Amino acid sequence: MSSEDPNNHPRRAVVLVSGGLDSATTLAIARDRGFDSYALSFDYGQRHRHELEAARRVAEYHGVVEHRIMTIDLRAFGGSALTADIDVPKDRVASAQNEDVPITYVPARNTIFLAFALGYAEVLESLDIFLGVNAVDYSGYPDCRPAFIEAFENMANLATRLAVQGRHLNIHAPLIDLTKAEIIQRGLALGVDYGLTLSCYDPAPGGRPCGHCDSCRLRAAGFRDAGAVDPALSG
Amino acid sequence: MSSEDPNNHPRRAVVLVSGGLDSATTLAIARDRGFDSYALSFDYGQRHRHELEAARRVAEYHGVVEHRIMTIDLRAFGGSALTADIDVPKDRVASAQNEDVPITYVPARNTIFLAFALGYAEVLESLDIFLGVNAVDYSGYPDCRPAFIEAFENMANLATRLAVQGRHLNIHAPLIDLTKAEIIQRGLALGVDYGLTLSCYDPAPGGRPCGHCDSCRLRAAGFRDAGAVDPALSG
Repeated sequence: MSSEDPNNHPRRAVVLVSGGLDSATTLAIARDRGFDSYALSFDYGQRHRHELEAARRVAEYHGVVEHRIMTIDLRAFGGSALTADIDVPKDRVASAQNEDVPITYVPARNTIFLAFALGYAEVLESLDIFLGVNAVDYSGYPDCRPAFIEAFENMANLATRLAVQGRHLNIHAPLIDLTKAEIIQRGLALGVDYGLTLSCYDPAPGGRPCGHCDSCRLRAAGFRDAGAVDPALSG
Repeated sequence: MSSEDPNNHPRRAVVLVSGGLDSATTLAIARDRGFDSYALSFDYGQRHRHELEAARRVAEYHGVVEHRIMTIDLRAFGGSALTADIDVPKDRVASAQNEDVPITYVPARNTIFLAFALGYAEVLESLDIFLGVNAVDYSGYPDCRPAFIEAFENMANLATRLAVQGRHLNIHAPLIDLTKAEIIQRGLALGVDYGLTLSCYDPAPGGRPCGHCDSCRLRAAGFRDAGAVDPALSG
């Protein structure tokens, strides 16, 4: 499972790390594939800023080479329950077939995050960007769909100095076809400590998950379906 | 030349405004096409931050509805003479056929700027983003090429809530096929006051253009070829 480049150096990967379950798993997968990881997180005015503490813990645990936290003010745009004074929905009926875009969707968030990852990758001369979007999140977030990821990769391969040099950049979304339970099983097999992660959109002041937002509910169902106990809840 | 939507409201456009000659012209073109303009600028750690003052003057002059300046720290990545401690090249031989990417190229800058514009547009329910890339800048900046703009538009049309609703977003690059002289002639015909703009990559402390960087030289050649006087130099 080695990933050496022609000069025999381990390859560098930029990994988007939110501090949640999915990105922790993605980081473990990047490491498992032999990449040296450079973690990138965002302080974007999210109400669940506790996730940045989780991102730091997760990045450190997985031995990343570097962890950068970019500050960007998506509150300036608003338009989401995560960045504006809009209540986070609780206990709503989740459905993978739901065609509405949830109010917790942040306008263009993944586009913006991937754009920064592209700039970071270019400076590192990395040709690999990992992010933890998946089929469950896909239940309504337009920028978690496979077609979006593919279109971003196409665009990225025209955007940079590396592209001009004919070097192909890959956007890896290794969780995209997995259920939450499969993600958790994969992560446990790779030694992820989910006790370090935080998924909640609306945690209590101390960082304790609310248990009722879409993200908490998807996570709970995932652990249940995986036949595992969520270590973040057993404190 | 009216641009009314089906509800008879003027359409909203997000216009990227740097404070330079190209974006001032682009703003005038958006207005001429009947759009209400929402200007977006970036304080990204550029050494030529004086351009933000120019951006404010230009936006005000053109009567934008709103002007947002996002602060993002591209210095954190570096990799460019505009954002790192690298000298801006002076008096180099400019050539549209030059295949090297200049050191003034900022990694993924237009991707990042357009990503923010996409988020802003989505919140405004705008389906039109304007930016002032052109054929002359194309002489080396990968993210000024027509194929890049087209790929970004394709990606953007998969990225957002508006995309899910089947509403098509347009990335307008009205200068892309124009020479600098043609841009200036077009702008003068639309009443642009180029005395408000600043193109220099490395202005003196008071904001006076250096006259020797690529951007100053392209601008000077453009005014000469257009048979016009640059009002920014006649002070």
